[in-house]
Amino acid sequence: MEQLLNKIQFPSDLRKFKEQQLPQVCKELREFIIESLSKNPGHFASSLCSVELTVALHYVFDTPNDKIVWDVGHQAYGHKILTGRRERFHTNRKLGGIKPFPSPDESEYDAFAAGHASNSISAALGLAVAAETHGSKEQVVAVIGDGSMSGGLAFEGLNNVSSTPNNLLIILNDNNMSIDKSVGGMSQLLISMHSSRLYNKIRHTIARGLTKIGLLNRERANSLTRFNNGLKAMLYRQKNIFEGMCTRYFGPIDGHDVLELVRVLRLIKDMKGPKMLHIHTVKGRGYEPAEKNATVWHQPGIFDPETGERIVSDDGIPRFQDVFGETLLELARTNPNIDGVTPAMPTGCSMNILGKEMPERFFDVGIAEGHAVTFSAGLAKGGRTPFCNIYSSFMQRAYDNLIHDAALQRINMVLCLDRAGIVGEDGPTHHGAFDLAFLRPIPNITIASPYDECELRRLMYTAQLPDKGTFVIRYPRGKGKLKDWRCPLEAVEVGTGRCLKEGTDVALITLGPIGKTLEKAVGKAAADGISVAHYDLRFLKPLDSNMLHSIGQKFGKIITVEDGVTAGGMGSAIMEFMAANRYTPTIRTIGIPDKFIEHGTVSELYEMCGMDSNAVYEAIRDIQGKC
Amino acid sequence: MEQLLNKIQFPSDLRKFKEQQLPQVCKELREFIIESLSKNPGHFASSLCSVELTVALHYVFDTPNDKIVWDVGHQAYGHKILTGRRERFHTNRKLGGIKPFPSPDESEYDAFAAGHASNSISAALGLAVAAETHGSKEQVVAVIGDGSMSGGLAFEGLNNVSSTPNNLLIILNDNNMSIDKSVGGMSQLLISMHSSRLYNKIRHTIARGLTKIGLLNRERANSLTRFNNGLKAMLYRQKNIFEGMCTRYFGPIDGHDVLELVRVLRLIKDMKGPKMLHIHTVKGRGYEPAEKNATVWHQPGIFDPETGERIVSDDGIPRFQDVFGETLLELARTNPNIDGVTPAMPTGCSMNILGKEMPERFFDVGIAEGHAVTFSAGLAKGGRTPFCNIYSSFMQRAYDNLIHDAALQRINMVLCLDRAGIVGEDGPTHHGAFDLAFLRPIPNITIASPYDECELRRLMYTAQLPDKGTFVIRYPRGKGKLKDWRCPLEAVEVGTGRCLKEGTDVALITLGPIGKTLEKAVGKAAADGISVAHYDLRFLKPLDSNMLHSIGQKFGKIITVEDGVTAGGMGSAIMEFMAANRYTPTIRTIGIPDKFIEHGTVSELYEMCGMDSNAVYEAIRDIQGKC
Repeated sequence: MEQLLNKIQFPSDLRKFKEQQLPQVCKELREFIIESLSKNPGHFASSLCSVELTVALHYVFDTPNDKIVWDVGHQAYGHKILTGRRERFHTNRKLGGIKPFPSPDESEYDAFAAGHASNSISAALGLAVAAETHGSKEQVVAVIGDGSMSGGLAFEGLNNVSSTPNNLLIILNDNNMSIDKSVGGMSQLLISMHSSRLYNKIRHTIARGLTKIGLLNRERANSLTRFNNGLKAMLYRQKNIFEGMCTRYFGPIDGHDVLELVRVLRLIKDMKGPKMLHIHTVKGRGYEPAEKNATVWHQPGIFDPETGERIVSDDGIPRFQDVFGETLLELARTNPNIDGVTPAMPTGCSMNILGKEMPERFFDVGIAEGHAVTFSAGLAKGGRTPFCNIYSSFMQRAYDNLIHDAALQRINMVLCLDRAGIVGEDGPTHHGAFDLAFLRPIPNITIASPYDECELRRLMYTAQLPDKGTFVIRYPRGKGKLKDWRCPLEAVEVGTGRCLKEGTDVALITLGPIGKTLEKAVGKAAADGISVAHYDLRFLKPLDSNMLHSIGQKFGKIITVEDGVTAGGMGSAIMEFMAANRYTPTIRTIGIPDKFIEHGTVSELYEMCGMDSNAVYEAIRDIQGKC
Repeated sequence: MEQLLNKIQFPSDLRKFKEQQLPQVCKELREFIIESLSKNPGHFASSLCSVELTVALHYVFDTPNDKIVWDVGHQAYGHKILTGRRERFHTNRKLGGIKPFPSPDESEYDAFAAGHASNSISAALGLAVAAETHGSKEQVVAVIGDGSMSGGLAFEGLNNVSSTPNNLLIILNDNNMSIDKSVGGMSQLLISMHSSRLYNKIRHTIARGLTKIGLLNRERANSLTRFNNGLKAMLYRQKNIFEGMCTRYFGPIDGHDVLELVRVLRLIKDMKGPKMLHIHTVKGRGYEPAEKNATVWHQPGIFDPETGERIVSDDGIPRFQDVFGETLLELARTNPNIDGVTPAMPTGCSMNILGKEMPERFFDVGIAEGHAVTFSAGLAKGGRTPFCNIYSSFMQRAYDNLIHDAALQRINMVLCLDRAGIVGEDGPTHHGAFDLAFLRPIPNITIASPYDECELRRLMYTAQLPDKGTFVIRYPRGKGKLKDWRCPLEAVEVGTGRCLKEGTDVALITLGPIGKTLEKAVGKAAADGISVAHYDLRFLKPLDSNMLHSIGQKFGKIITVEDGVTAGGMGSAIMEFMAANRYTPTIRTIGIPDKFIEHGTVSELYEMCGMDSNAVYEAIRDIQGKC
């Protein structure tokens, strides 16, 4: 059979095909994704799930004039491949290659940045309202998964969808299989009923008229700042949830039937007013191993496309995540007050280890970082000792919760920030670059980062001891250095660092596992006759004032290295300490510079930021006047 | 008639009364609140609205063993008065007096910190789950207003209410009057139907059994991380919104009928499983002027309790809020691309001025800071120029939205942070203390603060010019200094500060209106023979490197003063600049110290933080070696 996919450079090429050719396009697109990802790993199961939707959207809508806003973007590989990036797709997630998530910087077909869940409705609503204001005919489509719908931001967006005239289409890509076929059959009726063009036109005209004379707006001002009236209609079951939000609802339909998708999208495309299409899909669709275990195949690494065998190397060194998960269970076995809380990342952070043995003390709250922190604070206030684990960059979602609900009340809880620092291939939306800088100003909290896996265990042990307040532990994604990591669980004195190596010329202060990567730099400097003292700060807050006084007294030259932004970060804290205590050393701060860092391997990005061993060695030579 | 309120020291005293006496208690409590607040101003209308609910809750529940979590806390004055704080209530909101919002630090009856909206369900759920885990009989009640329900955090909490066995009672205090009596009548039927004790007991026993054998938990793990199945039931109108969230729903009932409240609360109190009681109330209830205009009477200032006349002084000096509101309208008249976006604070930030003249370009999105920023970013991506106004401390809620949805894409939008710095009587939850420190690490953004009202206008004008990126302007609550503030709208060069006064001994660098308050300190130092150069930094980002190089070259002594935390703040940025450019001045940073600052007047708190003119004068003498 004639190949079709390689004829598609852009969606305009796709739109030249006959409808009957679309199933073939879907088949080739799916095969292309499977083949590509088996060699160059990435987000697999989600992209397979949205193949038909992607083809149907670009077939029916006039992209890029019409806009598609993908939520999260895990599912957007098909979209990339159909929008000018097929030939470069083998560079996906590689340094300088295709970006890991949709990004307007890369393509005009990427209508809005994606990466963090639940933002699509709000962003697309902004685009749709702007189009309406400008009298433009452009269509805006938000594609959001059922998982993202648990995030508060998605709810806030939905709650505002009807607040002003717009033609937004929200597609709920629902791959939870719990609703059966008969419901879908019934809803065919709903589709024909709802899609009456006349009805919609009248409704929209009325809404527009009201707005012009200022009535809708006044009503909105009175009602929207309060509990949405639509929600009230839901109380009495007059409306379903989307109708309650004044959004017309269509579906559910089979999201893997590309012809049906095209038919329905054409039907509702030009209807006025906000609308929601609910489609049912299967994560990993079309690749059996992925359909069977979508969690593992979310991001499976490389694999044999024929057999479905994943190719995993094991050098016996665990990831920090494994150490966290095993240690949490170990602690929970002896401390009956410990609970685990995760916002939808039980596997990613390894809290599933606790969940398996102690399901009643394990809480997966969905994609809801704010709730995760405030709920943990409530648990703690009720006498529990929660370990709440959130990826560093997602913690940006729970900043107020940490300040207002935890720190202000000196809540005894442990907040573990996984994937802190540079994360590699997931790129700028996912680097845990800012946490040290945004956490440091918060009063009452403890901020620690372990030098290695054993230290992570000791910090976790320390954090769950009585009355330790709000205790943050940040650590990176991936492997550490130790095979033998099951050290005894002993307490670390809060607010103490340690001297790893004595020296006389330059003080090197590091925080976290990045310190371990710099042993080589210290060694090379020694070979040049520069005596570097290496200190592991361990606690960004409270600072070890004894150690820092001693450094201030002994050294005129200090270099700080952290896996985070230097602006306001650890180096900045050292400067503040030295100034407040009237020491006047020369200080060089090394860390992530003041820009968003793109994707690549961690070591490539370390080098790019001047945080690698060689760069630090050069900085030591420079501050010592040897350059 | 015998007085009852003065016999109540604690709720245990209230519980000694007969039910028939409760209406009298409510009457006295309402009068006490009106009388107190007419002299010592505070949050008025909300507290009147919840008088009967407060009395009923403390009558039926065994507080403080049972826990009441108030959302926001505006409505909790009655609660304070009944829980040991009546005699000190005249000190409410004053330095050293009763705290402005419920706080566990103040009273064991305050089960959780309040201040920022929408946290009550998540926090109370934590308390309820902890009680369940510990096998405790304590009851937990969350009281949330209809306004707070628009916040994403409330939705996230609600979405998790049924995730594990607990007996949480959520009271939806709904003071939107749009649902009429007949609906309430119908729902009496619902109450009797739903409150069958046997039905609930069976239901709970089954849930508990499933959890014990691990079944409920596995199911939860599979479903809750995805779109809540309950929400799906709502799609088909099988359930109302709370039932959809697996929460039993009762109501609505009249929230001003204390005897009915007591009856219903007793009925549902011991029912197992999470439940929601919906009550209807009137904001400002029982005080006619407040009932008529609840917005003005939210926080009316002092007034004559007999006539309802508010006592407002006007010295002709506008508030920064007035200047913002008037200037936004002025700009919007000439720039047709400007829109205004506010998360439920149109009156507070004065965006209602725009809303009145241009309703179609004004968006009140409800209490939804995250959505406000992401929606604005969407508008901007669609070619609009949104001014999004958020209170500084609430901006903590939209931190990720700013990073991920705006800065990363270099979105052209203006973010105005109102109530930045110390806000006074609203206390630690409301001080805009952290913004400079948490904004500074974000790449791609501009951060400015005006020295005075005219500068606010010029910065607003500058920010809406083409391609200015994400432009943050922060300014304080309340009045500035200028009567004559309608200066011409001219552009300020981004990233430039200015020298306000030349000098030779010490460089004083300030940011924002706090600079103006320090003219006196500079004058006093001059009288002591210390020549202080005063620089207005104006832009925290980008820094004015020309000006700072010049300072670095000329001065060995620098004092920085900012209305924000010093940790990571403006002073810290100056240190980083000086170190990076190899200047070695002595630097003293003055600002909010590393603790949560309590409530009081702004000048009292400035003094407490050493940010007032006298303290800065002393610091100048000190750095100059004159102490």
